[in-house]
Amino acid sequence: MTSADLPQGDLGLLSPVRAGSAAEAATGDAAFLQAMLDAEAALTRAQAAIGLAPASAAAAVGAVARAEAYDLPGLARRARSGGNPVIPLVADLTAAVAERDPDAAAYVHRGATSQDILDTAAMLVARRTLGHLLADLDRAAAALARLAEEHRGTPMPGRTLTQHAVPTTFGLKAAGWRNLVLDARDRLHAVRASLPAQLGGAAGTLAAFHEDGGGLDLLSRYAQETGLAEPALPWHTLRTPVADLGAALAFTAGALGKLAADVLVLSRTEIGEVAEGSGGGSSAMPHKSNPVRATLIAATARQVPALASVLFGAVAAEDERPAGAWHAEWQTLREALRLTGGAARDAAELAEGLRVHPDRMRAHLGLTGGLIISERLSVALAAKVGRVNAKEIVARASRRAAAEGIGLDVALAEEPALAGMLDADRLRELTDPAGYLGSAVALTDRALRRRPSGENNR
Amino acid sequence: MTSADLPQGDLGLLSPVRAGSAAEAATGDAAFLQAMLDAEAALTRAQAAIGLAPASAAAAVGAVARAEAYDLPGLARRARSGGNPVIPLVADLTAAVAERDPDAAAYVHRGATSQDILDTAAMLVARRTLGHLLADLDRAAAALARLAEEHRGTPMPGRTLTQHAVPTTFGLKAAGWRNLVLDARDRLHAVRASLPAQLGGAAGTLAAFHEDGGGLDLLSRYAQETGLAEPALPWHTLRTPVADLGAALAFTAGALGKLAADVLVLSRTEIGEVAEGSGGGSSAMPHKSNPVRATLIAATARQVPALASVLFGAVAAEDERPAGAWHAEWQTLREALRLTGGAARDAAELAEGLRVHPDRMRAHLGLTGGLIISERLSVALAAKVGRVNAKEIVARASRRAAAEGIGLDVALAEEPALAGMLDADRLRELTDPAGYLGSAVALTDRALRRRPSGENNR
Amino acid sequence: MTSADLPQGDLGLLSPVRAGSAAEAATGDAAFLQAMLDAEAALTRAQAAIGLAPASAAAAVGAVARAEAYDLPGLARRARSGGNPVIPLVADLTAAVAERDPDAAAYVHRGATSQDILDTAAMLVARRTLGHLLADLDRAAAALARLAEEHRGTPMPGRTLTQHAVPTTFGLKAAGWRNLVLDARDRLHAVRASLPAQLGGAAGTLAAFHEDGGGLDLLSRYAQETGLAEPALPWHTLRTPVADLGAALAFTAGALGKLAADVLVLSRTEIGEVAEGSGGGSSAMPHKSNPVRATLIAATARQVPALASVLFGAVAAEDERPAGAWHAEWQTLREALRLTGGAARDAAELAEGLRVHPDRMRAHLGLTGGLIISERLSVALAAKVGRVNAKEIVARASRRAAAEGIGLDVALAEEPALAGMLDADRLRELTDPAGYLGSAVALTDRALRRRPSGENNR
Amino acid sequence: MTSADLPQGDLGLLSPVRAGSAAEAATGDAAFLQAMLDAEAALTRAQAAIGLAPASAAAAVGAVARAEAYDLPGLARRARSGGNPVIPLVADLTAAVAERDPDAAAYVHRGATSQDILDTAAMLVARRTLGHLLADLDRAAAALARLAEEHRGTPMPGRTLTQHAVPTTFGLKAAGWRNLVLDARDRLHAVRASLPAQLGGAAGTLAAFHEDGGGLDLLSRYAQETGLAEPALPWHTLRTPVADLGAALAFTAGALGKLAADVLVLSRTEIGEVAEGSGGGSSAMPHKSNPVRATLIAATARQVPALASVLFGAVAAEDERPAGAWHAEWQTLREALRLTGGAARDAAELAEGLRVHPDRMRAHLGLTGGLIISERLSVALAAKVGRVNAKEIVARASRRAAAEGIGLDVALAEEPALAGMLDADRLRELTDPAGYLGSAVALTDRALRRRPSGENNR
Repeated sequence: MTSADLPQGDLGLLSPVRAGSAAEAATGDAAFLQAMLDAEAALTRAQAAIGLAPASAAAAVGAVARAEAYDLPGLARRARSGGNPVIPLVADLTAAVAERDPDAAAYVHRGATSQDILDTAAMLVARRTLGHLLADLDRAAAALARLAEEHRGTPMPGRTLTQHAVPTTFGLKAAGWRNLVLDARDRLHAVRASLPAQLGGAAGTLAAFHEDGGGLDLLSRYAQETGLAEPALPWHTLRTPVADLGAALAFTAGALGKLAADVLVLSRTEIGEVAEGSGGGSSAMPHKSNPVRATLIAATARQVPALASVLFGAVAAEDERPAGAWHAEWQTLREALRLTGGAARDAAELAEGLRVHPDRMRAHLGLTGGLIISERLSVALAAKVGRVNAKEIVARASRRAAAEGIGLDVALAEEPALAGMLDADRLRELTDPAGYLGSAVALTDRALRRRPSGENNR
Repeated sequence: MTSADLPQGDLGLLSPVRAGSAAEAATGDAAFLQAMLDAEAALTRAQAAIGLAPASAAAAVGAVARAEAYDLPGLARRARSGGNPVIPLVADLTAAVAERDPDAAAYVHRGATSQDILDTAAMLVARRTLGHLLADLDRAAAALARLAEEHRGTPMPGRTLTQHAVPTTFGLKAAGWRNLVLDARDRLHAVRASLPAQLGGAAGTLAAFHEDGGGLDLLSRYAQETGLAEPALPWHTLRTPVADLGAALAFTAGALGKLAADVLVLSRTEIGEVAEGSGGGSSAMPHKSNPVRATLIAATARQVPALASVLFGAVAAEDERPAGAWHAEWQTLREALRLTGGAARDAAELAEGLRVHPDRMRAHLGLTGGLIISERLSVALAAKVGRVNAKEIVARASRRAAAEGIGLDVALAEEPALAGMLDADRLRELTDPAGYLGSAVALTDRALRRRPSGENNR
Repeated sequence: MTSADLPQGDLGLLSPVRAGSAAEAATGDAAFLQAMLDAEAALTRAQAAIGLAPASAAAAVGAVARAEAYDLPGLARRARSGGNPVIPLVADLTAAVAERDPDAAAYVHRGATSQDILDTAAMLVARRTLGHLLADLDRAAAALARLAEEHRGTPMPGRTLTQHAVPTTFGLKAAGWRNLVLDARDRLHAVRASLPAQLGGAAGTLAAFHEDGGGLDLLSRYAQETGLAEPALPWHTLRTPVADLGAALAFTAGALGKLAADVLVLSRTEIGEVAEGSGGGSSAMPHKSNPVRATLIAATARQVPALASVLFGAVAAEDERPAGAWHAEWQTLREALRLTGGAARDAAELAEGLRVHPDRMRAHLGLTGGLIISERLSVALAAKVGRVNAKEIVARASRRAAAEGIGLDVALAEEPALAGMLDADRLRELTDPAGYLGSAVALTDRALRRRPSGENNR
Repeated sequence: MTSADLPQGDLGLLSPVRAGSAAEAATGDAAFLQAMLDAEAALTRAQAAIGLAPASAAAAVGAVARAEAYDLPGLARRARSGGNPVIPLVADLTAAVAERDPDAAAYVHRGATSQDILDTAAMLVARRTLGHLLADLDRAAAALARLAEEHRGTPMPGRTLTQHAVPTTFGLKAAGWRNLVLDARDRLHAVRASLPAQLGGAAGTLAAFHEDGGGLDLLSRYAQETGLAEPALPWHTLRTPVADLGAALAFTAGALGKLAADVLVLSRTEIGEVAEGSGGGSSAMPHKSNPVRATLIAATARQVPALASVLFGAVAAEDERPAGAWHAEWQTLREALRLTGGAARDAAELAEGLRVHPDRMRAHLGLTGGLIISERLSVALAAKVGRVNAKEIVARASRRAAAEGIGLDVALAEEPALAGMLDADRLRELTDPAGYLGSAVALTDRALRRRPSGENNR
């Protein structure tokens, strides 16, 4: 409360899902600045490696490629003039190198275009952020696996269109959540492994490098130095990597959003079948224990698909560098990365802390007076009295059971058409929801055998 | 290059359209923090005004409601727990008030809910940002009016589906740009005037205020103290104001995007009919003068519609406060405000600095060898030889003129079906593009008579 | 089950929200075809009215401007070649007119461009569809007003972030729904009144009309003949009308989506505070009574914002006619119109048929053992023991009440710090949820006094 | 022009990109109806195969599972009541089976839920449509490969931010287009191979099938009978397949949109470096040859990303079947399929018919008076006079060359700082754009070696 000057810029005050997260740190302006410097340093290293620059130049660039040495707010302002931050950065980097080694200055950014640096930086940022994101997804998946195992036989109402349908198990539900998380994980993992370095020069022909004696070999070496994949072609306007990121992130946000949507339903005051481990407080109501993690994830799932639509839209980019489509990607991709990264952290915490109330689940199975197994009854009775009759009998008995507050088995026992066909025990068994779980357990077990792809080589 | 520690947070490095703009300053975390404090202060003032709190409490809250006194990064991190920044802020504000006047502390945030404060703050931020935005739109509109007046008779090719169609004037084009800017201005102006304060308490019933003896009168006074409109109902889940903002901002981004799209076409190397006053440089190509302002505006026009879709989606918010829909609005609305605000600044600069080359325009009218007035010819000839024949003759003569590099008037003169019908002078007149401007001048003049709505009371 | 040939095209099989609706009929291909013919007929009438065409030509065009006389599937296929359906339609219309009155054929589409006809047709379709839509919104608003009046004092739990917060009333909730519907209605009504005719000729200069002696006067007369507003300028690439439609429709979908979202929550099996009048059945579960109307509205609210984003994106249209932006509007606008139109029908049925269960609402107020009025208690006790103590006492008593299943008043009575401060009656009163409704009734009454704008002149 | 009754429904009149295409036929209501019947027939066949139904039942269902036997418009209307078309279809199908074999009627839809049928049908439709789409992408890729090979050495201006940057080749451009098409193709191919059958019963537990003695074995057999993949779990609310389709289609639309964006630029009247094989006509201007295929593709690329955002949003689906998210997918997915399918057809035609004008390209290289190789000069001169001096010299000489209309080589020759360093021949060589193509040819050759994945097993 006593800090003096107001910090400039955004610190996540309006985006609690990512405030203080690893994804936030990995995607901030400082992280992008560092990644741009990393790209510049990698380029000179690569040029040195194949003889296009002296080793001393690579050393000089590397030595000053530390973000903290640059005036970030100034770079941001100066980026306006040319429309991208690489232009002023190259000026400052060149000056810094010149101060250290005047001969090296000529090798800074040599042959490159702004987009080479900014795209490579974006891929480095994505690669680093996805590392955190995947770790959080793994945590979430592990916690969900534990929930699924623990509750593989815990019956609960299956709900469709907001209404009780037939019973299911909490284990199957948790296994489904995990399956979605693994789907997200596999997609992100594959995209991360494919993220390419960018190098093409002014119009993607590598012309200036070529003049120096470099070309495809430089592209290859540069990719190696950045730790990114080597692209088949410079991709200034072949935006597959960015679209792939957008797709995988939007899907991930949705996958986590499914978990959140279910937790929000199941933790409603009237339902209370699950609760977040540490619900959030309220500024007005001391008693409330809000599903805050689920809420923040749900908010993310509403935002990232729209961001992805911007990235998909930017694929249709004219010329060798487009006037707008490329620029629209920067903030959009970054926001998609950190929102989804924050949501993955919240999902891990949510899954690890989730409290499950099997007693409430069981109690709810009785809420409809047995109607929840009307499907079973319809089929069972169809064998006796035909399908159409069966449906009518179940519907009538259901209505009567609900109206009179009697058991459905009792109401059925008094149906004339069923007289002598099913005894009380069989009716009680038929109307017991916990006996109508179908293949839920087998499906859960099968789903739990799935392993994440590429588990050992992230 | 000499700054020491890296600043945290985003400073616009990836969003040059808004870097250093008034809209950026008006929408940053610090501005939101101040607006939240303004809302808290307005609430206590309103309570004091109608006798629900002592004047000393209002004074105490007002005295400490200065953003620079709070730990913004800490608030951002602490917002995670309850999912919104008001919760930790109320704690800190209460402590600050208590330090100054212990009796006043009980009146901090009294009766309010987090959403009352955050929504009011968002409306204050929107109101302030739109002030800047409207001023920039006015600058742009004024500059476009000057362009339209100056070039009301400057002929240029009208282009449809990328091809020359018939002639138009640059004046009509500029008048159209201005008309769109005024459409945007009028919509933003109307939305700005309608932005409401938010006050409802925990579930929108004003219950806690009511306990104290306040209710609709407090709502009214609070709105007055904030300078915002009084809403008919608390609008925690009646999100018309946010949707209206999203709509007006997305439209504005599109309207400016139309200007940018045209400038991008017209400043192509091959066309060069206009140029930005101060084109941006390139890190690789010293000769390039890029249409940077138009590029950044175009990038904005690609982003804001997607942000608006998130805001429209958030209207379908369940309950008295939704779990996600509300939270998805915060960053989205802020981003829409500052992107569009930055684009308005760029549009003003673009319009004020635009260089127009009437000679290039006139030269291009001749590019198709007169084909650009084939419509006129078809109609004129139809009166002589019938519509179908006329179209055929013009098409054939056009092809011949293009193939042989002769004038269309010459090719037509040699069409047997026209023999003796039109002399060379009439043919030359008919094939002069500058004589086929239709009502362009009259339309321009009419459009320029339009005045912005509510011009005098912003 | 006995029909012979499969119908071609879409009949709403995948879009039940609009199947068989007035909005569907008003937006189908046949409706667009008729509207295009209406536009052509209006043009020739307008030309005749100001002496640019013989009255007989207007009569001839009018006589054959009936959609059923044209080969719609053939037109759709032939539209591919030039990229829009007006080109083949003009050919067929000209032939039809020629058959009736050979002299009149030259006046068909005279001076116009495809976009004049297609845009005017879209505005006619929008105007007609919005008529149905507004009528359905009026029905919905009237039904919601009745619900609000009837239940102005019906207490129910206010819910925030899925949890019970403090009490509210069903009347206030219904009044809020109505307010949103009226917001939507007012926006659509204003947009509908402003929909302009389109007329500009090949590049928006009215050049060909001008040659004939027409210009602004023809534009004015044409607008009059179509029944649409007269635009200040041809708006081939000034797309305010389409963006305004997109905004108003997306907002409307959201507004109805809010109603649907609440109905979906409140009709959950565990909640059951409301039920749709005629719930939908299930193919598998005979007992289910699904909230189908709310479901279809909710599906609409997920789609229209994305469609609006396409329309906003199309505002940034280059040149005098853009290559793609315009073409992207057609199907998008039509889909937004009919989805929202269908949702309005469903909303009217939903509101008119909604069954409300005040007993369930009241029962749920007790679900948290009185915790729902903990805010009130915190404030009331703060006056006795200070704010911080009060919050602690309420939290502790709340936990005890919940854990031991006792009333909150009982738990509070046993709090030492409160000893002798509040008697049992006062505690019971303080903990009665129905006594803590704040200004809910006053707000409801105030909201119900709102009338739709322009009520009498639709 | 003589057809009698107006056809109902949409026939593509507003969507020329898909009118008459294979994708349109494969996605129409009739195709969905057939696919739903195919799903029902496959289910009964699978049940028969594992002994849960008599073979005669499978035969009976199969015999009447022909779409033309059903009243499609009636089904569409009746779908409203329950909110999906399967409910009335099952009624009609049951009646049809009963008529043929009364004993078989009980086996219709046995154990299934509407979503099993509708989701399976959607996957069948997607599979079939993607078959056509992939074939058209293959055609496009082959044509683009031919263009790239033919023009591997054809120099043209590289353009960035609308301005000439440095030279590139048309071959590299075409190779890039092909690479994007192959990226799209590989993604669609992978998604197509993974499309799963849906079977879970009322709440995804296979309960009713389990009662009959089936379960995972039935799921497996059903998948086999449909020709679709077997899912790990029923995916009623695990929507990976739909999201994957959305992502791959949006990317494909963008990839084709890049081709279209470039063609639109390059075929501008002032540029004319390429032209569509058969440009579209105009209703007003007989001379125009519009890039219609590119326009329609561009329109598609504006729509599909927004549709994909709806599909991503639907992943966050609550419960065992969501109230709205699922319903929002149907029309959205179908529209994404047929728009992209139509765009693929247009892209194939565009690529196959594209006319290329190397002479125009070469002429344009001279447009900037040699400025297009200023990058090269800067680097070449930097070796002589240092980097900063070199940039200044090139900039100054460029301005002079442009202002005085002289060659850049001439202007450079007169720069005092270069005196004696470079002779006229070397300057001419250095300023020849066709000599500055960098690795364009090598990159093209490398890119052309790429083969589509899974080429032989579609």
